Amino acid sequence: MKIGIIGGGSIGLLFAHYLNNNNDVSVYVRTQDQAEMLASEGLVLQKDGVSSCNPINAYTIDQWSGSEELTIIAVKQYHLSTLKHLFKKNIKTSFLFLQNGMGHLKLLDDINEITILLGVVEHGALKVNGNKVIHTGAGITKIADFKGKQQSLIQRIIASSTEDFPFDYVSDYYSMLSQKLLANAVINPITAVLKVTNGELIHNNFYFQVVKQMVKELTLVLQLENDGSALAYVESICEKTSENRSSMLKDIEEGRPTEVDAILGYVLTVANENRLEIPITEGFYQLIKGLELKGAK
Amino acid sequence: MKIGIIGGGSIGLLFAHYLNNNNDVSVYVRTQDQAEMLASEGLVLQKDGVSSCNPINAYTIDQWSGSEELTIIAVKQYHLSTLKHLFKKNIKTSFLFLQNGMGHLKLLDDINEITILLGVVEHGALKVNGNKVIHTGAGITKIADFKGKQQSLIQRIIASSTEDFPFDYVSDYYSMLSQKLLANAVINPITAVLKVTNGELIHNNFYFQVVKQMVKELTLVLQLENDGSALAYVESICEKTSENRSSMLKDIEEGRPTEVDAILGYVLTVANENRLEIPITEGFYQLIKGLELKGAK
Repeated sequence: MKIGIIGGGSIGLLFAHYLNNNNDVSVYVRTQDQAEMLASEGLVLQKDGVSSCNPINAYTIDQWSGSEELTIIAVKQYHLSTLKHLFKKNIKTSFLFLQNGMGHLKLLDDINEITILLGVVEHGALKVNGNKVIHTGAGITKIADFKGKQQSLIQRIIASSTEDFPFDYVSDYYSMLSQKLLANAVINPITAVLKVTNGELIHNNFYFQVVKQMVKELTLVLQLENDGSALAYVESICEKTSENRSSMLKDIEEGRPTEVDAILGYVLTVANENRLEIPITEGFYQLIKGLELKGAK
Repeated sequence: MKIGIIGGGSIGLLFAHYLNNNNDVSVYVRTQDQAEMLASEGLVLQKDGVSSCNPINAYTIDQWSGSEELTIIAVKQYHLSTLKHLFKKNIKTSFLFLQNGMGHLKLLDDINEITILLGVVEHGALKVNGNKVIHTGAGITKIADFKGKQQSLIQRIIASSTEDFPFDYVSDYYSMLSQKLLANAVINPITAVLKVTNGELIHNNFYFQVVKQMVKELTLVLQLENDGSALAYVESICEKTSENRSSMLKDIEEGRPTEVDAILGYVLTVANENRLEIPITEGFYQLIKGLELKGAK
């Protein structure tokens, strides 16, 4: 099928490469320069030290008209608001949103008469430049329907799975997103403040006590089962991505804005609405905002 | 008067230099090497770029017999237990303890029939090597009586004040120590985790929110006035020592053990005894213990 991907960051390029094997993919990116680079030089994907370069359709975002059957939104959550005008009526495409956190759900509530799917990406990817991405960690993409069930679309996405790039259907979008949010909310800020790999959070028993404190607070706010499964899930992600430096750590190190508002900001809003005190989470929110401010100077 | 100083770290050497002007000081240090270096080469103090070298009496700690009128204990709190055998009966000296925190008060309760004074040091000092110390920040030493009032001794210490090295008498040792503990408990761990100067805690408004959270917890545990004065005090110390890197930050950077147990460990024990929850303080305790563990590897 025809698939549009909006966003030329690491996730957008990763999806463009793999989905283009079985589909007709067009990537829509922010700058004219990147669109031209992709169109003229092709898209390079590197995995396990091996690079492959393939042609790809590439345009700027303002050229997107919603003509594809599926449009994947692969921009950071804090850029979503700049795309609002795209989500108007009278377009035929269905959307798949890949943002971290849950803050974007409010925005999606305002989009009517369109099928919306949600996804969480458990791949590691690093963008080298405008047309080159490294697949640093093979994982899975989970998808769930959010609005307007369309089983045949989901089935065709699942059918695009390859060994290196599988899709999995999940029936409950809330638990899918809240689990991912939990892992992001704990692992990202702590690793970014301490400047350590994900694995250190479980291998250093003192750091792990802070992980436990934070999981306890988030279990309450996100209404997760209080049976130890939330902590076990976070542990398993730290184990699986042991050598990785989290995206928030990389953002801080490179002086970029982080997704802290989409992740911890959202959690704090929910906590506030429910009059729950989550001091450790609040503390890490402030530490990351402070590090962002420092990096911006 | 005759004064013994136990401890050849930055504070011990700083006190030895200044008190030797008006008194007969002997320094007692841990290693034979340092004692010989001090005795043969003298004690060098550097201030504002100017160095002065003066002769000093120096011995190893096991040569101390308690013959001086006053003995100043200038070792880190976590080394105090190794000196326990010195605090036995049948010695004539009075003690002045300069440790951070309040954890050592329990130990002092067991010392009988001896005058004990407590002090807090608000000077900045950096030990360069065994016989050289830099006076990096001019401040004051506050002293208070803890056990066995001896006004004449206190008066003679105060009389040793010089412009560069003043002493001040404080009537209430508890508020003196708890204020200092408050400042240490907030400034040391946060700066050590973030690796920033003291001033950044008030100049970066996000970091300052964490300072506020922690002051709130500590005000409760240390039973300080809940009238904003605790926060104002911490702010004033950050302002006065704006360019300084805290001792805990320096310890972490150099892979040394920190005073976190004397400072936050003590606070957590008191909180626990009173069933108070102080999550931010507990979180920072674990972060520092984790950083110590990492540095030790």
